[in-house]
Amino acid sequence: ELFSREVSVKSVQEDFRSFFTPLPSFPPIPKNNSLTPEKVKLGKMLYYDPRLSRSQLISCNTCHNLSIGGDDNQKTSIGHGWQAGPRNAPTTINSGFLKVQFWDGRALTLEEQAAGPLQAHVEMNATPKLIVERLKRIPEYVELFKKAFPGEKDPVTFENVTKAIAAFERTLNTPNSPFNRYLLGDDNALTSEQKEGMKLFVKYGCIACHNGPVLSDGQFHEFKWNKDLGRYNVTKNPKDKYKFRTPQLLNVAITAPYFHDGSVNSLEAAIKIMAKKELGKELSNIEAKKIKAFLESMTGEVPLEARVLPELPEKN
Amino acid sequence: ELFSREVSVKSVQEDFRSFFTPLPSFPPIPKNNSLTPEKVKLGKMLYYDPRLSRSQLISCNTCHNLSIGGDDNQKTSIGHGWQAGPRNAPTTINSGFLKVQFWDGRALTLEEQAAGPLQAHVEMNATPKLIVERLKRIPEYVELFKKAFPGEKDPVTFENVTKAIAAFERTLNTPNSPFNRYLLGDDNALTSEQKEGMKLFVKYGCIACHNGPVLSDGQFHEFKWNKDLGRYNVTKNPKDKYKFRTPQLLNVAITAPYFHDGSVNSLEAAIKIMAKKELGKELSNIEAKKIKAFLESMTGEVPLEARVLPELPEKN
Ligand code: HEC
Ligand code: HEC
Ligand code: HEC
Ligand code: HEC
Ligand SMILES: [Ca+2]
Ligand SMILES: [Ca+2]
Repeated sequence: ELFSREVSVKSVQEDFRSFFTPLPSFPPIPKNNSLTPEKVKLGKMLYYDPRLSRSQLISCNTCHNLSIGGDDNQKTSIGHGWQAGPRNAPTTINSGFLKVQFWDGRALTLEEQAAGPLQAHVEMNATPKLIVERLKRIPEYVELFKKAFPGEKDPVTFENVTKAIAAFERTLNTPNSPFNRYLLGDDNALTSEQKEGMKLFVKYGCIACHNGPVLSDGQFHEFKWNKDLGRYNVTKNPKDKYKFRTPQLLNVAITAPYFHDGSVNSLEAAIKIMAKKELGKELSNIEAKKIKAFLESMTGEVPLEARVLPELPEKN
Repeated sequence: ELFSREVSVKSVQEDFRSFFTPLPSFPPIPKNNSLTPEKVKLGKMLYYDPRLSRSQLISCNTCHNLSIGGDDNQKTSIGHGWQAGPRNAPTTINSGFLKVQFWDGRALTLEEQAAGPLQAHVEMNATPKLIVERLKRIPEYVELFKKAFPGEKDPVTFENVTKAIAAFERTLNTPNSPFNRYLLGDDNALTSEQKEGMKLFVKYGCIACHNGPVLSDGQFHEFKWNKDLGRYNVTKNPKDKYKFRTPQLLNVAITAPYFHDGSVNSLEAAIKIMAKKELGKELSNIEAKKIKAFLESMTGEVPLEARVLPELPEKN
């Protein structure tokens, strides 16, 4: 009896495991921005450097804090001048795997993305000119740009700032999560509750949108929630009203609050809302709890190297 | 000839070296707050945790950023609600060696000090009650407090928060600076310009106030500079008007801007102002440059361990 039960559980697990894609160690690397150690080192310094903001107080890490899941504990982000922006900050962790960036997909690549917050008035409120001027006054940075972009005559450019940051972000991956270890074959990496949650996640159809290595299809789906028109703001196509790009679910247990406006604090509540609004299903508390347990298995550790604060050079 | 010159330089160096005190690896540890690894680990997490602030956005590391010299790049600090405080943030690095804390010496110990910013409205704007409530909701923290304060029935207290943070701060020391290596016997750790600066620093009397392991006598001296009455605000003794505690000079080259109001950007300018106001001497540009070079030798590296961002636990 014990034997047969074990077998049936095993085959169930394997069935469901096949719906998922393990997370590779690195996302696709674009042809025009190879991932060299020199560039990653520079990008890390820039990611942590508050001098990229007008106030010299806000860095990428302020809102995408790598000690708390790559986000900022806020409903919607607080940036320059303590202004609250309109949206919740998603994590930078594993962001290199996303097919499009931002809740409304208005950037295609991490390079393009990084140009946004640096200039946004409610975020870092800088300009390409200001940033390049500041960096050029710091001899150690000029050297590091030369090394990261060899052969370029004047490598300290805004474009290269975004390239280096994007390269660093492509190292912020968490293939060490229990979920990923499970997909790679470690049957004991998930608890039985988590395995049941996985089953529900597939059976109820969450996987229709939350699929691929970071559990996002990169597509836009209607989520009518508040006045934010989402994708429509980008395309002006009426069909895109209230549509948002499916967010990744890796590390979702440590990136509360939820949804594009950070309006929901509890992961269980977010799961129930999804089931209702996207699938027309009322989940029981027990079902939501199981799915939550499953999503918790998707929490991994950011590589240690990325969490060592760089000693940033002083300007002369 | 070469030989005799070498000898005379050597004896000069040795004379001046004897005016200084090498930096030990750790400052004095108070009897009631022993420096255990468990406490340092907890203190580090608290130092980096923005949830100790009301907004959940500001941590000690926001204003005492260990990748930029333990300060915040601001003239005077910007805290909760983007309010500017009245004073420039000194570094937390080597702060355990200071005899009194704050520009006006209003706290005697690091433990006492830490209670300030956590509650200050213009800084973190929290309350002991709020902080303890938040921490108690995070099971991993409760465990870590138990380990850091063994034998205590209810270890998650505001007092223990300040104790753990102080313990962590006592590990933020930079005995690896060229200056300290020079004091320990490495004759080549300083350039000859730096050695000349050292000589001027002693000869002109900077050392009268800037002495001891962190180059601060811990005493209060008149520096009439603006409306800030300094020590007088603490003692109400008219003799203390405009008096400030001598700041440390370790890492001073990376903690611009200078003075209690952060009003001076250049280290050379700060040196000249000091010579004028505290010693009645006009320094030449060359002399100021040499002293600056000497002070630059006091920059060291914060221990790597302290710069590894902790992975902070999520509340349940
Ligand atoms: C003041 C807060 C703030 C700062 C500073 C900030 N971000 Fe963001 N970030 C956000 C918010 C809010 C969003 C979502 C905006 C949206 O989708 O409309 C976002 C989105 C992103 C995304 C897209 C992730 C996804 O899932 O679509 C990436 C990647 C990112 N930021 C990286 C960075 C980098 C790199 C920097 C520094 C150059 C930075 N951010 C600075 C708040 C911030
Ligand atoms: C039709 C597509 C679709 C389906 C089906 C779907 N989701 Fe989503 N999911 C989305 C989109 C789009 C969002 C972003 C909503 C927004 O704008 O905040 C989202 C957001 C979420 C969030 C919040 C993520 C965050 O970081 O804020 C969670 C959790 C989530 N989904 C889980 C699930 C679960 C569990 C199911 C199944 C019960 C499910 N989703 C079904 C598309 C879908
Ligand atoms: C919003 C900015 C801000 C935050 C947050 C902040 N500090 Fe400070 N800190 C300052 C300023 C400004 C001073 C100087 C105030 C004065 O002397 O009146 C200071 C002084 C200090 C000193 C005294 C150093 C010396 O040379 O006298 C220490 C130590 C210190 N802070 C540690 C901390 C710790 C620990 C935390 C977190 C619990 C913290 N600070 C949070 C801005 C900040
Ligand atoms: C009589 C005591 C005294 C003497 C002598 C003195 N200092 Fe100071 N020093 C101070 C005090 C007090 C301050 C803090 C002033 C303030 O309130 O900002 C200070 C501040 C400084 C600062 C700015 C530190 C910072 O982090 O903002 C530097 C640099 C400095 N002194 C260097 C020197 C040099 C070099 C000399 C000699 C030419 C010198 N000092 C002589 C007491 C003294
Ligand atoms: Ca979130
Ligand atoms: Ca300063």
